[in-house]
Amino acid sequence: MQDKLIRFGVSMEDALLGKFDRLISKRGYTNRSEAIRDFVRKEIVEEGIHNGKAAAFGVLSFVYDHHVRELEAKLTGFQHVHYKSIISSSHVHIDHDNCFEVIILKDKAAEIEEISAKMLSYKGVKHGRLSLTLSGKEI
Amino acid sequence: MQDKLIRFGVSMEDALLGKFDRLISKRGYTNRSEAIRDFVRKEIVEEGIHNGKAAAFGVLSFVYDHHVRELEAKLTGFQHVHYKSIISSSHVHIDHDNCFEVIILKDKAAEIEEISAKMLSYKGVKHGRLSLTLSGKEI
Amino acid sequence: MQDKLIRFGVSMEDALLGKFDRLISKRGYTNRSEAIRDFVRKEIVEEGIHNGKAAAFGVLSFVYDHHVRELEAKLTGFQHVHYKSIISSSHVHIDHDNCFEVIILKDKAAEIEEISAKMLSYKGVKHGRLSLTLSGKEI
Amino acid sequence: MQDKLIRFGVSMEDALLGKFDRLISKRGYTNRSEAIRDFVRKEIVEEGIHNGKAAAFGVLSFVYDHHVRELEAKLTGFQHVHYKSIISSSHVHIDHDNCFEVIILKDKAAEIEEISAKMLSYKGVKHGRLSLTLSGKEI
Repeated sequence: MQDKLIRFGVSMEDALLGKFDRLISKRGYTNRSEAIRDFVRKEIVEEGIHNGKAAAFGVLSFVYDHHVRELEAKLTGFQHVHYKSIISSSHVHIDHDNCFEVIILKDKAAEIEEISAKMLSYKGVKHGRLSLTLSGKEI
Repeated sequence: MQDKLIRFGVSMEDALLGKFDRLISKRGYTNRSEAIRDFVRKEIVEEGIHNGKAAAFGVLSFVYDHHVRELEAKLTGFQHVHYKSIISSSHVHIDHDNCFEVIILKDKAAEIEEISAKMLSYKGVKHGRLSLTLSGKEI
Repeated sequence: MQDKLIRFGVSMEDALLGKFDRLISKRGYTNRSEAIRDFVRKEIVEEGIHNGKAAAFGVLSFVYDHHVRELEAKLTGFQHVHYKSIISSSHVHIDHDNCFEVIILKDKAAEIEEISAKMLSYKGVKHGRLSLTLSGKEI
Repeated sequence: MQDKLIRFGVSMEDALLGKFDRLISKRGYTNRSEAIRDFVRKEIVEEGIHNGKAAAFGVLSFVYDHHVRELEAKLTGFQHVHYKSIISSSHVHIDHDNCFEVIILKDKAAEIEEISAKMLSYKGVKHGRLSLTLSGKEI
């Protein structure tokens, strides 16, 4: 069930409004309300992750060299230890040597960060990034 | 085939080295060389993405409300238009209303950013993040 | 002279509006319009800096060890070479060894980044950060 | 007094080393050790700020419209309330309407963030950024 929509007024300088309209049109928005809701949700997510209080989803992506001895077995073994926090993973073959792995996690932000740091520390894992968001209930 | 390894010396203040060792041990590294290689690759990736010159991989993740009318059809239709840049997508059911979608892209960084901005602008897409890395050849 | 203010309506789900109100109250805002204007300006600045088109202000801050031989002379000499891009600098004595220097720059973003990278590369400059914003006309 | 320097070996793939050398040469470094020390300090600072444990320095910069009624009095008054956390401030006249203010703070990271959020929430403060670093003892 959708929430009730509340309508309220916002005032903005003429020149700023013109820049706002150009920016959101460039990004593909078709109305101001949707853009403003997205900006608001972005701030709520940043605050929530910063405070570490809310349940989070994480996406850990990394490039690794699958020729490095025992790396795949270590990655798989480690993920099984943390199977409760890891929802799924996808795999892309980049080239003869390199793989790109994308792992979806669900846990508290601090826990996701710790699991990710460990995987990124393995020899053969060349570069990775973790991005966090809050679950839908929060936003 | 692995590259030839080169060995070189690094000098570091005693106190800084102690902090370095504690940091990387906490993150799970078992030797200094691997941590330093990761720090170096991170800087190379940031430089490469900033300059926008190299081929990139992107991971776009977002939370959306699947009850929003036509949203799923719009998301699917848009992805098919850009099928050459989109490698795969994964889907997680968060709760009764919300989904979490993770899309893997391969293209120039600027192109990935434009495709991602459009999807994040749709009504019903609540919050999303794009993270970029370079392909394995570059790092 | 102030711009003319335009007023327009925004619709937001009840629950999201409640979270928005709590967030901005925590940050010290006294009305929604001012918070929304700030979120909009933040997006405009990020877009502008990302594209590198607009005139920017930069604040480069770094910690350095003033005992390192010739460092202060090098920093001062380099700043004089770039005097047209550097507006002013402030200096804080942190402790017996360390100084904290804050330099205000005005130039194109790419130029500010290059000048900053050079200063941060000097031996004895321990850690630094550059933050960029657009000039007031743009926001 | 400078710390004792310790020397240790790092091994790196030939191709990665070439990219590392090009990157640091572009940024102005004259030797690998200094670049590696800087990368290490950057990670230590990020970890320290993330955990919020260590004493921090903050640089808050923002653009504001000095025509907005009472804004300058509010900014000054607020800074005096927090005079123990605020070391100094610099001021740049951007144009007829806009000022650029740079404030140096010293406190725990969380405290600096709270003080900064409040100042950025004032009507007439258009856009601002806070950047944090650790004090010299930590790095």
